[in-house]
Amino acid sequence: MQQGQMAYDRAITVFSPDGRLFQVEYAREAVKRGSTALGIKFKDGVLLISEKRPRSKLMEQNSLEKIQLIDDFVGCVTSGLGADARVLIDFARIVTQQEKVSYGSLVNIENLVKKVADQMQQYTQYGGVRPYGVSIIFAGIDQVGARLFDSDPSGVINEYKATAIGAGRDQVLNYLEKEYKEDADEKTAIGIGIAALKSSMEEGAEYKTPEVASIRSDSTFKIFTKEEIEKLVK
Amino acid sequence: MQQGQMAYDRAITVFSPDGRLFQVEYAREAVKRGSTALGIKFKDGVLLISEKRPRSKLMEQNSLEKIQLIDDFVGCVTSGLGADARVLIDFARIVTQQEKVSYGSLVNIENLVKKVADQMQQYTQYGGVRPYGVSIIFAGIDQVGARLFDSDPSGVINEYKATAIGAGRDQVLNYLEKEYKEDADEKTAIGIGIAALKSSMEEGAEYKTPEVASIRSDSTFKIFTKEEIEKLVK
Amino acid sequence: MQQGQMAYDRAITVFSPDGRLFQVEYAREAVKRGSTALGIKFKDGVLLISEKRPRSKLMEQNSLEKIQLIDDFVGCVTSGLGADARVLIDFARIVTQQEKVSYGSLVNIENLVKKVADQMQQYTQYGGVRPYGVSIIFAGIDQVGARLFDSDPSGVINEYKATAIGAGRDQVLNYLEKEYKEDADEKTAIGIGIAALKSSMEEGAEYKTPEVASIRSDSTFKIFTKEEIEKLVK
Amino acid sequence: MQQGQMAYDRAITVFSPDGRLFQVEYAREAVKRGSTALGIKFKDGVLLISEKRPRSKLMEQNSLEKIQLIDDFVGCVTSGLGADARVLIDFARIVTQQEKVSYGSLVNIENLVKKVADQMQQYTQYGGVRPYGVSIIFAGIDQVGARLFDSDPSGVINEYKATAIGAGRDQVLNYLEKEYKEDADEKTAIGIGIAALKSSMEEGAEYKTPEVASIRSDSTFKIFTKEEIEKLVK
Amino acid sequence: MQQGQMAYDRAITVFSPDGRLFQVEYAREAVKRGSTALGIKFKDGVLLISEKRPRSKLMEQNSLEKIQLIDDFVGCVTSGLGADARVLIDFARIVTQQEKVSYGSLVNIENLVKKVADQMQQYTQYGGVRPYGVSIIFAGIDQVGARLFDSDPSGVINEYKATAIGAGRDQVLNYLEKEYKEDADEKTAIGIGIAALKSSMEEGAEYKTPEVASIRSDSTFKIFTKEEIEKLVK
Amino acid sequence: MQQGQMAYDRAITVFSPDGRLFQVEYAREAVKRGSTALGIKFKDGVLLISEKRPRSKLMEQNSLEKIQLIDDFVGCVTSGLGADARVLIDFARIVTQQEKVSYGSLVNIENLVKKVADQMQQYTQYGGVRPYGVSIIFAGIDQVGARLFDSDPSGVINEYKATAIGAGRDQVLNYLEKEYKEDADEKTAIGIGIAALKSSMEEGAEYKTPEVASIRSDSTFKIFTKEEIEKLVK
Amino acid sequence: MQQGQMAYDRAITVFSPDGRLFQVEYAREAVKRGSTALGIKFKDGVLLISEKRPRSKLMEQNSLEKIQLIDDFVGCVTSGLGADARVLIDFARIVTQQEKVSYGSLVNIENLVKKVADQMQQYTQYGGVRPYGVSIIFAGIDQVGARLFDSDPSGVINEYKATAIGAGRDQVLNYLEKEYKEDADEKTAIGIGIAALKSSMEEGAEYKTPEVASIRSDSTFKIFTKEEIEKLVK
Repeated sequence: MQQGQMAYDRAITVFSPDGRLFQVEYAREAVKRGSTALGIKFKDGVLLISEKRPRSKLMEQNSLEKIQLIDDFVGCVTSGLGADARVLIDFARIVTQQEKVSYGSLVNIENLVKKVADQMQQYTQYGGVRPYGVSIIFAGIDQVGARLFDSDPSGVINEYKATAIGAGRDQVLNYLEKEYKEDADEKTAIGIGIAALKSSMEEGAEYKTPEVASIRSDSTFKIFTKEEIEKLVK
Repeated sequence: MQQGQMAYDRAITVFSPDGRLFQVEYAREAVKRGSTALGIKFKDGVLLISEKRPRSKLMEQNSLEKIQLIDDFVGCVTSGLGADARVLIDFARIVTQQEKVSYGSLVNIENLVKKVADQMQQYTQYGGVRPYGVSIIFAGIDQVGARLFDSDPSGVINEYKATAIGAGRDQVLNYLEKEYKEDADEKTAIGIGIAALKSSMEEGAEYKTPEVASIRSDSTFKIFTKEEIEKLVK
Repeated sequence: MQQGQMAYDRAITVFSPDGRLFQVEYAREAVKRGSTALGIKFKDGVLLISEKRPRSKLMEQNSLEKIQLIDDFVGCVTSGLGADARVLIDFARIVTQQEKVSYGSLVNIENLVKKVADQMQQYTQYGGVRPYGVSIIFAGIDQVGARLFDSDPSGVINEYKATAIGAGRDQVLNYLEKEYKEDADEKTAIGIGIAALKSSMEEGAEYKTPEVASIRSDSTFKIFTKEEIEKLVK
Repeated sequence: MQQGQMAYDRAITVFSPDGRLFQVEYAREAVKRGSTALGIKFKDGVLLISEKRPRSKLMEQNSLEKIQLIDDFVGCVTSGLGADARVLIDFARIVTQQEKVSYGSLVNIENLVKKVADQMQQYTQYGGVRPYGVSIIFAGIDQVGARLFDSDPSGVINEYKATAIGAGRDQVLNYLEKEYKEDADEKTAIGIGIAALKSSMEEGAEYKTPEVASIRSDSTFKIFTKEEIEKLVK
Repeated sequence: MQQGQMAYDRAITVFSPDGRLFQVEYAREAVKRGSTALGIKFKDGVLLISEKRPRSKLMEQNSLEKIQLIDDFVGCVTSGLGADARVLIDFARIVTQQEKVSYGSLVNIENLVKKVADQMQQYTQYGGVRPYGVSIIFAGIDQVGARLFDSDPSGVINEYKATAIGAGRDQVLNYLEKEYKEDADEKTAIGIGIAALKSSMEEGAEYKTPEVASIRSDSTFKIFTKEEIEKLVK
Repeated sequence: MQQGQMAYDRAITVFSPDGRLFQVEYAREAVKRGSTALGIKFKDGVLLISEKRPRSKLMEQNSLEKIQLIDDFVGCVTSGLGADARVLIDFARIVTQQEKVSYGSLVNIENLVKKVADQMQQYTQYGGVRPYGVSIIFAGIDQVGARLFDSDPSGVINEYKATAIGAGRDQVLNYLEKEYKEDADEKTAIGIGIAALKSSMEEGAEYKTPEVASIRSDSTFKIFTKEEIEKLVK
Repeated sequence: MQQGQMAYDRAITVFSPDGRLFQVEYAREAVKRGSTALGIKFKDGVLLISEKRPRSKLMEQNSLEKIQLIDDFVGCVTSGLGADARVLIDFARIVTQQEKVSYGSLVNIENLVKKVADQMQQYTQYGGVRPYGVSIIFAGIDQVGARLFDSDPSGVINEYKATAIGAGRDQVLNYLEKEYKEDADEKTAIGIGIAALKSSMEEGAEYKTPEVASIRSDSTFKIFTKEEIEKLVK
C-alpha cells in the first residue's frame, strides 16, 4: 500500500489525490476472489460458461449453479459476493417484468443492463452505502440479435464478443484474444470457452466439468448436462 | 490481527483492500459461539436437530427450545444472537402469512428464505446498522418436495442435503460428508445426525439429548420427545 | 480492558473481532448496578419480589415502589436506568391497551413481552441510538396459566420458573437453583424468595422488608403490606 | 478524570464500560451550578422556595423570578441552563392545555411530569442531540392531593415530601431529612424551608430573601411578598 | 485553553465534564467582537442606542443603521454576525405578522422575544447546526407598557431596565449600574446612554455620534438625527 | 496558521474559541482568487464594471462575460467559483420571476438581494454543506432609485455608493474612497471605475478593456462595446 | 502534497485555508486519466472528435464509441469515469425529452448544458456524495446556430469555438490556439482536429483512427466511417 493511501480509502464518497475511488477498487478484489466465468458469442447465439469449484457434496445441485435465467432469453453469471449477486439478479428480474408489462416483451437487453449498472454506480457515489462486490456477465437474444455485456462494481458496462470475470479473468481473456473466432459454431465455441477456462486454472487444481448454457438466435435456451459437455469437449 | 486491518473493520460500508467485509466476518464469530444445530434430508422428509446446552433448570422448557415452527410445514433452527434470531423468525412468519393471503398457501420455501436473506444482506450494505449476528437453517416441505436451506450473516443462502451451523459446524459437516446417506430412513437419519452432533462435542462436555424435529413428505410435523429420541438412538 | 477492545466499543452498530457487541455488554453493567429483584412461580400463581434499598425518607412511598402493574393481571419489576425503565413500561402499557382494543383482553403475555423486547433489540442494531440500560421481569396470568419472563438490554427473552435481575442476580439464582420447589404454596414461595434476596445482600448491609406482589391463578392481584410480609416470613 | 473516560463521554448514545452515560452526568454538572431551590409539602398544601442570587439591579423583577406557574394549581422551579428550562416549561404548559381540552381540567400532575420527563429521557438516548441541562421541581394540587415531583437530566422522576435541586441540593436535603415534619403548617414549613436554604449557603455569601410560593389544598396559589416572608421568618 | 477542553468543544451536542457548552461560549465571542449597543427605559418609553463604528464612506447610510424596526412599536439592535442577525430579525418580523393576523395587533412583546429565543436555543441542542452568533436587544411598547429584553446565543432571555450587548457590554453595564435612573426623562436618558457608550470606548478611539431611537409610551417611534442628538447631548 | 486552528476549521457548524467560522473565511479566499469587479452609482444610475482576464481565444465571447442580467433593470457581477455563481444567479432569476408573478414587477431590489443572501447564510449554519465560494455585486433601478448591493460567502449584505469584489478589491476600494464623486455623470463614473480597476492590476499585467454595463434611472440598460469604452476613457 | 493539505481534502463540503475544494481537484485527476476528446466549430457546424485507445478486440464496436447522441442534433463526448458519464448522459437525455414535451423541440442547448452542470455542482456542495469524475463536451445545433460547451467536475460550463478534455487536453488546446480557423470548412476542421489529437499522443504510442462526428447547420448528423476519415485526412 502506498504512503498516504489509507487516508482516502475508507469512505466511498472521497477521491484520492490521483483521482481514484479506492472502495471501488477494493470491491473489485472481492470479485477477483470469485469463481471464473465467461461469455462467448458464436455464429448462432451466445454462451455462458462458469467454472465449478469443488464444494461440499452435501450441497444441492441447484444451489451450486452459477448461471441464472433473468428472463426467457436472457441469462447471467456472476462473480463476487453471493448475497450481493442475488440481490442484483432479483433487481434485474423486476426490471424485466416491468418492461414486459409496458411493452409486451423485453425489447432491448442493453436497457436492462444499464438499469442494473445504474444501481451499481449509485452505490459508488453516495455515502452510507458500500459498492456491490460483484461483476455480472449478461447474455441474451433481443431484436438486435445476440448480446453479451459485463458490468463491474464501478457500474461500468461494455458490450463484448467474448468476456470473462472472476479469479481467472486475465488468463481467460488472454486465451480468448488469441483463440476466439466470431464465426465458430456452438460446439467449437464451447470447446474454446472450456479451454480458456482450463487455461486459468492453477496447476494441480482439480478440474470439474463447468456449467454451460447456450442462448440461441432461434430463441431457445439450453443448459447442457455434464454428459453432453464432456461428449462435446472430447 | 493483521497489520492495518483495524482501519477497515469498524464500518460496515467499507471494503478492506483485499475485498473483505470485516463486520460480516465478525458477525460470523457471534454465530460460531452459538449452539450447534443441523438439518438432514432423509428418504421421506427433512430433520432438524439442535444441541441442548446445559442451562438453568429454572428456565421453562419452551424457552429452551431452539427448533421453531415458521408455518405448518416449515421450521427453522438458529445459532448466534438470540434477539436477532427472534426478530428474523418473526420476519419470516410475516412473509409466510403474506404469501398465504396472496396464494392460499406457502408455495415455495426458497422464496421465503430469499426474503429473509435479502433482509440480512441489506444490513451488510447500508451504514448506520450492523449485520444480523445469526445463521439460520430452514427446513420444510413444499410443492418441490423436502427443502433444506441455510443463511449466514452475509445473507448468502444455499440449498443442502445436510448442513450445520454454530460452534460445532465444521466437525458436524466433516462427519456428515463421510456418513450422510440420501436414502436413509428417518430413524437412520436421526442416528446419523445425533452421531454428527456428538462428534462436535468437546471431550468431557456433558451430553444432553438434543432436540429433534421431523417434517415428513406426507406433510406431518413431529417433534420427538426425549424418550422417543433415546429409544431411537439406542 | 483487553488490548484493542477500545476500537470496537464506541458504536453500537459494530461487532468486535470476536463477535461481541460491547455497547450491549456495557448496558448490562448499568443493570448490574440496579436493585435486585426476582420472580417465582408457585402452585397457584406467580410472585414478584423486589429489594428495597435504603433511600431518603423524604421520598413518597409510591415513588419507591419497584413493582409496577402493566395490566389487570400482568406486572413487572425492572433494574437499571430509571428513566429507560419508565419509558419501556409505558410502551408495554400501550401494547396492552392496543391488544385489548383488538381482542377484548390480553390473550397472551408472551406477545406483550416480545413486543417490548423487539423494541429493545432494535436499539442494539441501529446507529444513532444506545441500547436501553434496563432488564425487566414480567409476571402474569393468561390463558396459558402463570407466566414469568425476563428481558435484558440485548432484547433476549426467556421464560422461567424463577428468575432474577440486578446487582444480586447471580447469588439469587444460585440460591433458587438449590431451593426452588415448583409445587410450593404462596407462603412458602415468598419465604424462599425473600431468603434468596437475603442471600444476595452484602454482609452488614441494612435489610429492609422487600416489596412482594402475587398474581394468582384465580386472577387476583395482591400487593402485600410490610406487616403481612413480616408475619409470613416469621 | 479517570484513565480512558475520555473515550466514552463525547457521544450521548454510548455507554462507558461500567455502564455509565457520561453526557448525562455532565448535564447534571450544569444543574449543580444553578441556583438552589426546594419544594416542601405541608399539612394543607405544598411550597416552592427558591434562592435569590444577587444580580444586576438593572434586571426587571419578573425576569429574576424562578418560580413559574404552569397551570392554575401547578407551579415549578428549575435549576440549570436557562434556555433549556424555558423550553421545557413551555412544553409543560402545552401538555397541560392539551389535557384541559381533553378532560376539562388537569386531572393528574404525575401524567404531566411524566410527559416532560419522557422528553428529557429521549434526549439521552438518541444521537444528534444533547440532554437538557436542567432539573425541575413540580408542585401542585390535583385530585390525589398535594403533589411534589422532581426530574433530572436523565429523565428520572420521583415523588417527594420534600426535595431540592441546584448548587445547594446536598446541604438542603441533609437539613430537611433532619428537620422536615409532615404535619407542619404553612408558616412552620416556610421557616424550615428557608432555614434549609440558608444551611446551603457558603459562609460569607450575601443572603437575600428567597422567593416563596404556596399552592394550598383549597386550591389557592399564593406568591409571598418579601415583606410577608420576612415577617413570617422572624 | 485548559487541558482537555479541545475534546468537548467541537460538537454542539456535547457537554464538557464541568457541564459547559463550549460552542455556545464561542458564539458569544463572536458577539463580543460586535459593535456596542444598549437599551434604556425612561419615564415615558424605552431607548435603543448603538455605537457607530467608522466604516467606508462608500457605504449607504441605511446599510450602516444598526437599529431596526420589527413592527410599529417594536425595534431591536443586534451585535455579532451580520447575516445571522438579519435572518433572526426576519424571523421576528414573520412572528409579528402571524400574531397580527391572529389577534389584530402584537399583544405581547415577551411572546415575540420567546419565539426568537426558542429558535436560538434549538440551535444549541441539535447536531448538524451551529448556534447563532448574535445577541439581540428588543425594545418596544405593548399593553404592559415599555419593555426591554435581550437574548444571547444560548437562547436565554431576560427583561431589563437597561442592558447592553457587544464589545463594550461590561463597561456600559458598569456605568449604567451606577448612573441609571428609572424616572429620568428622555433627554436625560439619552445623555446617560451616550455617556455609558463613551465609557466603553478605548482610549484614542474615534467617537462618532451614535444611532438613537426612542419608542415612547404614547406609541410614537422616533429616530433622532445626528443634529438632534448632538444638540441633546450638549 | 495559528496553533490549534486546525481543530476548528474543518466543519462549518463549529465556532473557533475566538468566535470565528473558518470555513466562511476560507470561502472568502476562493473569492479573493476571482477576477476583480466593481459597482458605482452615478448621477443618473448605476454602473457595473468587470475586469477581463486574458483567456483562451477559443472561448466564445458570451462565455467570457461576467456581467449578467437578472431582470430587465437588475444586473450582477460575481467573483469566485464559477459554478456556485451560476447556481446563485439562477436562484436570483427564479426569485425575480416569482415576485413578478405576485406583484407585476420587481418592486424592491433589496428583497431580491436578501433572499439570495439568506440562501448563502444557511450554507454557513447547517452541517453537510459548504458555504458558497462566491461574492456578488447587485445593481439596478427600482422604485427607490438606483441601488447597489454586495453579498459575500457569509451571507452579509450591504448597500453602497460604490463597492468592489475579487482579487483587486482592496486596491479598488482604496482608489474609490479617494476619487469617488456621487454627482459624477456616467462618462466620468466610467472613467473613475476603470481607473480604479487599473489601480488594482499587478505591475506588468496585461490590460484588457473591461466589461462595462450601465443601468440608468430612466430604466435603460446599456452594455458598452469595447470601442465605446475606449472612446469614453480616452 | 503540501504540509497540512491532508486535513482538507477528505470531505467535499470543506474549503482548504486557501479556498480550494480538493475533492473537485481530485475528480479532475480522474478526468485527466481519461481518453482525449475535442470539439471544433467550423463554418457550417460543429465537430466532435475522440481518441480511440487500443482496447481488447473482444469488445463490440458500439461499446468502444465515445461520441454519444443526446438528441437529434445534440451530441456529446466524455472523459473520466465511465459509469459517471453514462449516468450524466442519461440525465441529459431525460432533460431533453422533458424540454421537447414542453416546447415541441429542444430550443436551447445552453439550457440543457446548464441543467447537467447544475447537477454536477450540487455534488460538490453537499455532504454524503462525491463529485462526478467526468468532463463532458456538448455540441449541437439550436436556434442560435452551432453550439459547443464543456463542463468539468466543478460544474463550471463555458462556450467555445474549440475545446478539449481528457489526458491530452493541454497539448490539444495548445495546438488549436495556434491552428484553429473559424471559417474552416468541415474537411479542413477535421484535419486540424485530428492533427491536434495526434499532437497530444506520447511518442511511440499507437495511433488509431479517431471517432469523428459532425453536426451540420443544415441539421444533419453524420458519423464518419474509418475509411471516410482516413480518406479525408490524406
